Order: sequence, then structure tokens, then C-alpha cells
Amino acid sequence: MTTGDTGWSPDRHSTQQLQTPPSGYKVEPWQLAWHGLAVDQLQRTESTFALSNGHLGMRGTLEEGEPRGLPGTYLNGFYETQPLPYAEAGYGYPEDGQTVCNVTDGKIIRLLVEDEPLDMRYGTAPEHVRTLDFRSGTLRRRTVWVSPTGRRIRLTTERLVSFTQRAIAAIRYVVEPLDGRLQLVAQSDLLTNEPIESRTKDPRVAADLGSVLRPDFATGSEQRALLAHHTHKSGLHMAAAMDHIFDTPDGMDTRLLVEDDLARVTAAAEVPEGGRLSITKFLAYGWSSTRSVPALRAQVDAALTGVVQTGWDRLAADQRAYLDAFWETADVEIEGDPELQQAVRFALFHVLQAGARGETRAIPAKGLTGPGYDGHAFWDTETFVLPVLTYTQPEAVRDALRWRHATIEPAKQRAGLLGQRGAAFPWRSINGAECSAYWPAGTAAFHVSADVADAVARYLAATGDIDFERSCGAELLVQTARLWCSLGHHDEHGGFRIDGVTGPDEYSAIADNNVYTNLMAQQNLREAAAVCDRQPDVAERLGVDAEEHKTWLEAAEAMLLPFDTMLGVHPQASGFTVHDRWDFEGTSSDHYPLFLHYPYFDLYRKQVVKQADLVLAMHLRGDAFTAQEKARNFAYYEPLTVRDSSLSACSQAVIAAEVGHLDLAFDYFAEAALTDLHDLHNNVRNGLHIASLAGAWSVAVAGFGGMRDHGGRLTFAPRLPPALSRIAFRMCFRGNRFSVDIGGEAATYQLLAGEPFDIAHHGDALSVGSQPVTRPIPSIEPGERPRQPARREPARRRSAQR
Amino acid sequence: MTTGDTGWSPDRHSTQQLQTPPSGYKVEPWQLAWHGLAVDQLQRTESTFALSNGHLGMRGTLEEGEPRGLPGTYLNGFYETQPLPYAEAGYGYPEDGQTVCNVTDGKIIRLLVEDEPLDMRYGTAPEHVRTLDFRSGTLRRRTVWVSPTGRRIRLTTERLVSFTQRAIAAIRYVVEPLDGRLQLVAQSDLLTNEPIESRTKDPRVAADLGSVLRPDFATGSEQRALLAHHTHKSGLHMAAAMDHIFDTPDGMDTRLLVEDDLARVTAAAEVPEGGRLSITKFLAYGWSSTRSVPALRAQVDAALTGVVQTGWDRLAADQRAYLDAFWETADVEIEGDPELQQAVRFALFHVLQAGARGETRAIPAKGLTGPGYDGHAFWDTETFVLPVLTYTQPEAVRDALRWRHATIEPAKQRAGLLGQRGAAFPWRSINGAECSAYWPAGTAAFHVSADVADAVARYLAATGDIDFERSCGAELLVQTARLWCSLGHHDEHGGFRIDGVTGPDEYSAIADNNVYTNLMAQQNLREAAAVCDRQPDVAERLGVDAEEHKTWLEAAEAMLLPFDTMLGVHPQASGFTVHDRWDFEGTSSDHYPLFLHYPYFDLYRKQVVKQADLVLAMHLRGDAFTAQEKARNFAYYEPLTVRDSSLSACSQAVIAAEVGHLDLAFDYFAEAALTDLHDLHNNVRNGLHIASLAGAWSVAVAGFGGMRDHGGRLTFAPRLPPALSRIAFRMCFRGNRFSVDIGGEAATYQLLAGEPFDIAHHGDALSVGSQPVTRPIPSIEPGERPRQPARREPARRRSAQR
Repeated sequence: MTTGDTGWSPDRHSTQQLQTPPSGYKVEPWQLAWHGLAVDQLQRTESTFALSNGHLGMRGTLEEGEPRGLPGTYLNGFYETQPLPYAEAGYGYPEDGQTVCNVTDGKIIRLLVEDEPLDMRYGTAPEHVRTLDFRSGTLRRRTVWVSPTGRRIRLTTERLVSFTQRAIAAIRYVVEPLDGRLQLVAQSDLLTNEPIESRTKDPRVAADLGSVLRPDFATGSEQRALLAHHTHKSGLHMAAAMDHIFDTPDGMDTRLLVEDDLARVTAAAEVPEGGRLSITKFLAYGWSSTRSVPALRAQVDAALTGVVQTGWDRLAADQRAYLDAFWETADVEIEGDPELQQAVRFALFHVLQAGARGETRAIPAKGLTGPGYDGHAFWDTETFVLPVLTYTQPEAVRDALRWRHATIEPAKQRAGLLGQRGAAFPWRSINGAECSAYWPAGTAAFHVSADVADAVARYLAATGDIDFERSCGAELLVQTARLWCSLGHHDEHGGFRIDGVTGPDEYSAIADNNVYTNLMAQQNLREAAAVCDRQPDVAERLGVDAEEHKTWLEAAEAMLLPFDTMLGVHPQASGFTVHDRWDFEGTSSDHYPLFLHYPYFDLYRKQVVKQADLVLAMHLRGDAFTAQEKARNFAYYEPLTVRDSSLSACSQAVIAAEVGHLDLAFDYFAEAALTDLHDLHNNVRNGLHIASLAGAWSVAVAGFGGMRDHGGRLTFAPRLPPALSRIAFRMCFRGNRFSVDIGGEAATYQLLAGEPFDIAHHGDALSVGSQPVTRPIPSIEPGERPRQPARREPARRRSAQR
Repeated sequence: MTTGDTGWSPDRHSTQQLQTPPSGYKVEPWQLAWHGLAVDQLQRTESTFALSNGHLGMRGTLEEGEPRGLPGTYLNGFYETQPLPYAEAGYGYPEDGQTVCNVTDGKIIRLLVEDEPLDMRYGTAPEHVRTLDFRSGTLRRRTVWVSPTGRRIRLTTERLVSFTQRAIAAIRYVVEPLDGRLQLVAQSDLLTNEPIESRTKDPRVAADLGSVLRPDFATGSEQRALLAHHTHKSGLHMAAAMDHIFDTPDGMDTRLLVEDDLARVTAAAEVPEGGRLSITKFLAYGWSSTRSVPALRAQVDAALTGVVQTGWDRLAADQRAYLDAFWETADVEIEGDPELQQAVRFALFHVLQAGARGETRAIPAKGLTGPGYDGHAFWDTETFVLPVLTYTQPEAVRDALRWRHATIEPAKQRAGLLGQRGAAFPWRSINGAECSAYWPAGTAAFHVSADVADAVARYLAATGDIDFERSCGAELLVQTARLWCSLGHHDEHGGFRIDGVTGPDEYSAIADNNVYTNLMAQQNLREAAAVCDRQPDVAERLGVDAEEHKTWLEAAEAMLLPFDTMLGVHPQASGFTVHDRWDFEGTSSDHYPLFLHYPYFDLYRKQVVKQADLVLAMHLRGDAFTAQEKARNFAYYEPLTVRDSSLSACSQAVIAAEVGHLDLAFDYFAEAALTDLHDLHNNVRNGLHIASLAGAWSVAVAGFGGMRDHGGRLTFAPRLPPALSRIAFRMCFRGNRFSVDIGGEAATYQLLAGEPFDIAHHGDALSVGSQPVTRPIPSIEPGERPRQPARREPARRRSAQR
């Protein structure tokens, strides 16, 4: 067990005086540690300390179960359905919602110390540190606890959700008596249908389903047990199993209890001072919508037997090796701001955790870190998360897009129901069926389909994965292109309009010619045509003929982009710039987020932007704007954008950096990167904002690195913000790993593995090879720093922190 | 009892062979009779035969309770609340809905004929006629029934809901043995919480509340009983009481049963052939939100005692006298189409029933004829119903607008909640609180507040009711004007825009500068300024200063009206005319109404009009359009308007007549007038379309009579459709009754009572005096008849029917 690299390691004796160590995160480059207990903050750390491999996720609750914020164990794609109620229903409204289930909790190991239950709310804890290690991929805990009657123990735990064995989690649990021999009783549980208390009106929180898992069977023998359950309405089956290896100096008694919703192995031992009770707990999970209960049992049993054979040490070594490989390709170094260095690695670690082993399942907005948004996946995945993974862990992108492809039938049915051709991907879903009950910000946000296409095109360009292109990519591009052709129409002047849709900004809805949507649709249409050119036999199989191909290119060519000639800016949709401005001066800071304090009708009809929309278009379709347009548009939208969504700061940072407002970009960088660590949206308890975390990478790479990938070509235009002395990052492109190292005056590009390839640096072509190539960074004069709405300017982060 | 004027009265013996007389309505000028039973049609006739005085309403169910479609007894304003569910809630969404209650049913009189219950589904009915008489204001029934065992009786009933005693209904019930002496047992009930079976997804149907009335107490003695109940959540109390007068040749036994939900007087008698069992049943109803149960009991008891003293004969005579007076002021004569003659009188009768004695309660969309739309009142009342009553029964208008005034506090609170000033009247409500759960077609339809103002201004101009102006009218105009000032804003060119609202056409929503809304708001602002000029002390009390007065007139003056210069027409809202046209050719006739078969998102973004919007603006604000604009606009919108609302045909008829398409206007006239009699929307079972019925009057008077009241001045521009030889109607204006008699070549105006006053005939001023004044009718050349969407042309009614 590794405990040595906890940065903060007080002397054991001195801590006897320190009853309550300072609580909070400690800034360190490769790990996130929280010192002290802080019961009221537990929900936060349960999210930030969540472990996941994209298939199985566990919130960072304490092993003893309580105190707790919100327990949670999730299996990607495992949900229960519930009817969506409507006081006034309408045609095409989805009838059923889906909510991620909190499945059987296997993390629990309760401890009795001489008949006192270990509960951090009682007694004292002279030492209590929990550490999420980005390189070992484990969550460690080191607690010295003095029971109310004065018994002292040290508890050291480490746990992981395996990247290499996706059904597996494991816990190493060690108790040491510090004051003489103690009787220790440990109870290791599988617990189903834990009661959870939660009442809120916030629409971002999950529906409360109560106890949804119904027992199929429960079995066990010796130190091993298995519980199988199913959901009532969605009809999904799951099983969880545990096995244990105990180690004590003087032997021990164990006992097994198996009930429908509880399996428990109890171990009792007398442990002398200097001795230890050591438990290694292995957990295996599985679920299926189709396999029988016996088949599922066999699968989980097999996985468990496998990992017992692997053993803790090799499992932990495999975990570290997996992460070493990841960081070799993905690491971002930030010099000049240690907290942001930590935050960016924290972000990358969680993005990896969300996407690593999903394997034909969605990457939910919260990953598997909490129940927020009901566990649904949104456009966030394709637009914010997949770009990161495309250049750091491309297999995860392939798998996530295979999930989209696996849902193309429901997406085609949805399009058909809506009177459209092609495929309309859902605004929010777990299984691919639309779950959004509010169509103006759900169904009407058709851009999600173009976002899927964008992610497909990016992945194909960055990997050249022909197999995927032929099996999935082409169909995704073609079916989404068909959607745009049916959603839009040529007006009497020939312009191609897409009317009555909702763009990324959720403070506008049902508008004509949203620039973001139209530009993404334009690209979608062109990429569909291109993939059909590349794969003519696939195109034929998909029923694409020359006529259809032509209509795509004609629609793309004629795509209408509104422009306000008086103001010299792009309205984010037709008519936007003639609307009244929101009364920002008259809006107090406690009235944000606005949607919890003002009606949609008033938000929709005024110039107020929840999240980057036109600004996001200038990032993803930067090739469609001149530099001057970008600068003018950015200056226009900054004073209107309130960032009530976590999906905004990163995009604003990227364009701020491009147009030269590097200080502002740096402030937004901090906001995006620290969203969850500082709990800026006051809802991290429901799970991490995976897309915002991904956005932190985007700011470093696409913002300060100026990376763009328009047309499948990688270009860079790096510029550091004054507060940083260096940013260096690694990426892979078409199988080639390379690094970009940015200083104040120059940037250096170097191939780390693979073949040389061409990029551009501030518009100048260069080849990235194994010899470092350094190029100077041109200066930029951005003019005055744009203002934000009153009381919504980002926190200034002028100088390096700490 | 009057039975003689049933137009169709077959000889008693000949009907013995005729087991099933022809079923359906019979065309007669002053009554509506249905011959035969037709169980599957009962729900229709229960609505058309509903009796109401605006305070108490009873559906036209058979006395014996079964067979039935949908029983219903309603007290205006008596509702239960229920939570409105939202899968995704939003700020400002109403939390509670209101649904009209089916209260204690007092109509029920069951009959045993020698131990066979009278049930029309069994045995045979050689004669069965039910007749709604527009002059007596009663519903009559004449049934000859042969029991399954061959016993023959004649049942003759007549019932009324009194216009003169608003708490009172009465039934006259006579049974005659036709084949020898019979034992007859009659059970007369008060029955609460009748079970009703109904399952539907149609959003226009009422919520199903189940048994909502909870017993307070039940009492009775001899032949009199009273049941008192309250609603659980809304906390409203009601009481219903009955008393009886029995008459038989040989005496009878009676028995009283009183339970919580049932009071029953049972009478048993032996009746010889030639004799009769006669029952007169008096019913009294009352409800209150504030009075105590004893007070309510006393009130209902007193009303019942009063009507027993009045007696049936005088009650029926008073009813007829009330209606005689109404027809003196309101009758419309149609020559050339007897069915339309009947339909227009049927319409006027029901409009009167809906509004006569509401007295500070709303006039619901269905009147008190059924539970449709949950018993809510909408803008229909002010825009369609009150114009009729303004010129025929102005006290009813005063009372209905007093209801609006009584709800001004919730309307101000609603405006405040929405961040607006002034008063925002609810889209749908019973008690004045917003009940619309779908804001794009509810909250955003702010025009309802201008519609209230329009009705106020019309009523004031037509009556000169200074008391109402000072006590209610001025405040209604001022608070609605304030709403518009806060909803709109001056753009950079000074134009006054009202963005993001929904006009009358519910196939568009959340649009900028809806012409109807802007024009109605403009008038609202001007009327508010005018009333403040007339009543400066009231203005001061309402806090109106010179500055505010100025802003109203400036906003009105600068009101923006979009115009498509290329097409030469008004878009119904900014951008409407550049949208794609609905694929009418590709829409099959069974896909109407469209909102049950297509999603809102697609309807909203295309050129397809559910109901007259711009065309309605051209009626109500005809002063804002040139004749040429009207003709062009009408021709433009006709091919887009699918009339999926019953609030469309009448408005299209009015403008069709104005622009000279008299045949088309006639077709729409028939559609509006026959909406309920022909069940054109297939939902008359849920209640009558009171606004569409009112629209039939509008077509006659404002369409073929060309009546307009812009600026409070009455003008006429009559023109008959070719199919009619004469239309004559009566109206009152500022207390003066007059008639307009329109022939093919000329129209004659004559004062019937009161003082001469000025009008215009086709633009020429003339004075209406006691001497008839005849003026020629100029001809008009309208050009080609506009087309309607494929398969949505109105049924052609070229020639007179029957």
C-alpha cells in the first residue's frame, strides 16, 4: 500500500494536540488531498473523490458509510424509467423519463473498535486525510481516530475502480491499534436500496425514485457473496459480488449474512499494538438488459474470481501503468499557478474516468460521479468532452460515438415522429430515447445532432479510423445531414434557413437561423458529402444518390448567416440584436442563475446569454469568421453573457485568448478549471461538471495553445497569459504523440513518437518531427478589455496563486 | 305545461309501428328538437340541451339518470384545485390548477313502472322527443315508453334554470299510464359525487378529479332535503336543496332518505289510465368561499321556500317574459336558410344562458354546459362573447368585466412575478389565478389583457356607464396599459416593439411584434389615456401622472407594425412571411387538428395558422388597415389558415364579407353557427363552444351587417350573401333599441325605443330615428375567391338548406 506520497504528513505525536486539522484541499501537482472531516462538505468531496472507469462509478463516501452526503454507486447505462408528467401534454412529448440508479453499494466496511462504531462525528480525529492520486488512480485515506472512550486506531485505506478490469473495484483496508490490544470487528457489506434523503425544486437535480431495485436472488459462502436485482419498469438486471482476503496476526472469526438487499461478511479479531487487521475487498459488478440472471451471475462471479487471482498489488500496478500511459499522451503542465496545474490534472483525470471504459455507453454530463441531471448524457459529451479525448484517449471517443451509433434507430424514429428525415439525437438520454420534457430547450435544440457529426468528423480526421468510418461514422454523418435538409428550407432568395430552433444559449429559444446551429449544420452537410465521396459503397448502402449529395452541398453553400450591418456583428439568431437588453444593472447577484428567478418568456425575448453560443460558434467554426468579426462579436457578446451554465467560461476563454484578451482568458481559465474544486455553481454535490473539466483542457490547448482542427488540419497560435510562465501539453494525432511547449516569447513543437506531420504555427506551416522546432510568438493588441454584465465579471486571477 | 308547439307530433297510434323514429335535430325557427334516443349521441344533446342562467348550469341528461353520456351540474366559480405537474418546472409556472366541479345533481327523477325501472335502453319508445325552446327557456321531453313486459306510459317533462331567480331550477314531471292502472314509484334525488368514466389524452378535456365533494351535513323532512358539501383543497362550500309538489288522483305514499351524498324522496302511487302522477321538483343551489355552512344552508333554504311560493306557473311565465325582452333587443332573422335561422337563435340563447346571471363570475369557454377546458374562462369571453352581449344584454357585460376587475389583484401579482408592471390577466382561470401549465401558449399570450381592455372600452362606449367607468373600467384600462409599457420597449429607431409574445394564432408562439397584439395594445394605451382625461380624479387615485400618460401615447404612436414590402402584406408577427409554408398538400384530412398529430416546434416555425390572428386584427382594429391592405392580407392568410380552432371561422367570415367574398363568408357563417349542432370539432360532448356561438351573431351583424364600433362609433356596411334574401337584427346602443333590416339591394335602419342617434351606412352618416331610413347597398368586386389549405376549405353552402 502506498501512503508515503501524501504531501502533508504530520508527525504522529504532534497531531495529538491538533484536534481539528485545517479543512480543505491542499495544492499539489499530482493529487488532490482534503484534510479534516467537514461533514457539511462531504457531498462536495464525495463528487471530487469519485472513482470511475466509465463503466462503474463510486462516489467518494467514507468506507463506514456515515457520515455521508449522498451515497452513490452507478453502472453506466443502468437506469429506471418513470412517467414524465404533463399538465398540458403535446404531440411528440416523451412519455417516459430515465433516471440513473444508485445500485448496490459495495464500498461499505463498518468497524467496531471495542464495541464503539467508527463514526467520525464522534470521538476525535487528530489526523484525517483523503487523497485522490492522479497517477495511481486510487483514493487513499489515512485517519487516526480516538473513540469517545479513548481507544486510538489508525485506519488506512486505498481503493480503486479498475481501468484494466472494467467490472472491478477493490479496497485495501488496514486498521492498526495505537494504544494496546483491541478487539476489532469489521463488517463488509453489499447494500442495496440505501435510503437517500433529498428534496429540491432545482430542475438540474435527479428525480427521486425511492427503492427501485427488486431482488432476484442473493447467495454467498465463506467470505464471498452476490446480490442480483432488477429494475421494475426498465427491466434491467444487475448483480454485484464481493470477496475478501483478511490478514491478522492472531487469526479471526468470520461470519456471512445474506439477505435480499444485504450481504455482509463480519470479521472479528483481537489485534495487538503494532499489529494490524488488513482486509482486501474485491468487488465485481455487471448488468444487462438481455442476459438471464444465471448468465449475469456467472459473469460477475467470473470477474470476481479473476481479480482475486490478479490480487491487489498487480491490480494497483496495472492501474498505475494505465495512467502512466495516459499522462504520457495527455499531460498538461502549467507553470506559474500551482492550483491551476492541480486543477487541470484533476480535470483530465476525471474526463478519463468518465470516458475510459464506457464502451458503447454514453458519457453522462456528470460522468458516474453523481446523480445530477438524472445521469443523462447531453451535447456536452460531443462538444466539450470528446475533443479532449480525441487527442488524448481516442479509443474512448470511438466507444462513445459507437454509443451514438447504437442509438441511431431511436434517433431516426424520433426524427420521423417529429416529421423530419434522418436522425434526431435526443437532448438528454441514457438509452437513446428522448427524455427532455421541455421541448423549447430540448427537442428544439437540434444542434445536438450536428454536434455528434462534428465529433465524428474530428475523430475521423484525428485518427484515420477507417473501420469506424465505414461501420458507424458514415451513417452518423449521413443521417444527421438528412435531418438538416429536412429541418431547413431554401427561401425565396435561395438562402437556406433553419427556423424555430434553439441554439446552445438556453436564454434564447425557438429562433430562426441560430448562427451556431447553421454553421454546425453546414459543416455536417459537407462532412456527410465528403464521407460519401470517400466511401462510395457505404454511401450506396445508406441510399445516398448523386441528387441527395448535391442537395447537401447546395444547402451548405446557401446556408444563411444573419449579420447586423448596423452593429457590424452577427446576431446569434435572426433578430437577436434588435431585442431589448436584459436589465443587468437591476439584477442583484443573488438572482443568478437567472432561470431560477425570472420566467423564460422574459429571458428568451431579451439580449441576455446564458452560455457561449455565437462565441462557441467562433471556436468550433472559427474558419467561418474573419479575425475582425471575431473581435467585434466577442466584444458585443461579453457584456451580455452571464455564464449561468458551466459550459460557458471555457468557450469564452478560448475566444478571449484568440482575440488577444489574455488576462480575461486566464480569469475564465481559472473559472472553468476550478468550477468543481471551488464549487462555483454550488451543486457539485450532484456530481462533477465533466464538460467544464474538459473545458479546462480546451482553454490550455485551444485557448493559450490556439489549437484548431478546422478541416481536419491541426494548427496552433499559442500565446501565454502574463500570469503564467509556461504551458506545455501533449497530444496525439493520427497515432503520433507530440508536445507543444509554450513560453512567453516562443513555442516549441516536438514529436515524441510516430511519424512527422504538418501543422501551422500562427499561420506558418511547419513539420513536427523528433527534433524540437521553436517559433516566436507574435504580439497582439486586443484593445480594451471587454466588460461583463454587472456583478458577473469573472474573479480576477491576476497573479500566480500560492 | 306547453307541449303543443313541438313541430313534429306524430299520431299516437301510428307510432306504435314505428319502433325507432328518425333520430336527429329538426329544423324549426324557435326551438331545437331531437327525435329518438340515439344513446351514442347523448353526450352531444346533453350539451346542446344544457340549461343555465350563468350562475347554475345543468347538462341535458335524462331525468332518470341513465343512459347518459356525461352528467354535469355546475355552479359558476365553484372549483377544486389540483397540483399542476411538471417534469421540468420553471420559474413562474403556476403550481395549482383549477377544475370546475360536477356538483350535486338535482335533476334526477327515477321511475319504476310496476317494478320495471324506466330505462330507454330497454323496452321500446315509439315516441321520444326532447325540445329546447328558445322563447320559453325550458327543456321539454315527451316520451312514450313500452316496458320490456309491455307496460305503456307517457312521460312528459319540462325543466328550467331560472333567469329570474338565479339560485333556482325546477322540473315538471308527469307520468300517464296508457294501458290501464299502473303502480308508479318515482324516486327524486339529490346525488353528490356521481362516478364519471372518462379517459382521454386530449388536452382540451377537463382533468378527472374523482369524488371531490366532502360532506358537511345532510338534512331533510317530508319532501324536502338539503345536502351541504365542500371541496377539500379549494375550501369552497356549497349546498343543494330540493322540495316537491306531488299530484295524483288517488293519493300516494312518500318516503325520505338522507345520506351524506344522497337525498331521496320516493313517492309510490297507483295511477289509473287517464290519470297522471305529477311531480313538480324545485331545486335551490348556493355556494360560497367565505360564508359559514349554516349561513349557506339558510340562503339555500330561503331560495327554495321562495320558489315554492312562486310556483311553477309563475316561474315559467317569468322565464318567458325575461326571454321575450331579450329577443326584443337581440333577435336576428335570417331568411333563405331555415337551419341557419335556427342556429343563430340557438347561439344567442346559449350566449345569454352563459352570461345572463354570472354576476361577478367569469363566463367560461364552455359556459356551464360541460367540463371542457376545466371550466376555465379565456380571452374568448372578452373578444367573442362580450361584443354580442354589449349590444344585446349589456348588464351581463358589466358583470363579466366586474369579475375581471375583482381579479385585478392576482393579475397585478402575476405581472409582478413575471417582472412586469400593471396587471397580467391569466390565460385560463376560474378564480383569477393563472392555471395555464404551458407558457408559450399561456403566459406569453399577453394579448388577453388588451382583450379585456377592448371589452371595457366597447362597453363604456356602448352604454356610457359612468359608474362602471369610475369604479372598474378606468382601473382595468390603466393597469393593462401599464403592462404594455413594461412589456414593450422603444428600439434604437424609436419604434415601440413588443417581443417574444404569442398572438391569437396558437400555431405560432413567442414571436416579435405580433400585429394583433401590438394593435390591441396600442388601442389599450390610448383608451387608458382617454379614460384618465375623462376621469382625472380616478386617474390620480390610480397614481397616473402626466409623465405616465405621455409615455402611453408615445408608445401607442410609435407602435411597430411589421410589413412585408415585397409581398405587400402584414406578417402576423415579425418574420412570419419568410418562414416555410406548411406542407398542406402532404397533410391528410385525418391529421387535423394538427396539434394532435404534429409537434409544436414544427407548427410554430412554419406558415400555418390555427385561427384568425392578423385577420382578427383586421376586424377589431379595422381602423388600422386600408381597404386594399385588408383585401391583400385576407387573400394571403386564407391559404394558410386551417381553422383548427372554433374561434376562426367567424372572424374569417367577417373579413370575407368586408372584402366582398360573400359566398365564402356565408360558408364560414354556416361553419361558425353549426359548430355545435353539427359537432364539427367532434368534442361538443365536453360542452358548447360559447365563443363560436357568439361568432355566429358576429357574422350576421359585423359580417353581413358590416357593423363596426371603432372609436365607440357605430357604423354599418351591410351586404347579403347571394343565398340569403334578408337578414334583420336588433341591437341596443346607449340605451336605444334599433333594428337593421338588410335586403339584397338596400338596408333599412329604424329606432325601436329611445332617442335618435348617428351611425354610418357604407361610410355615409345617417341618423337612426323612429322613421325607417333605407339606403342602397353598393356593389363590390372582390376578385377571385381565395383558396384555403388543401382539404380545409369550408363546406360549400351555396343554396338555402331544406
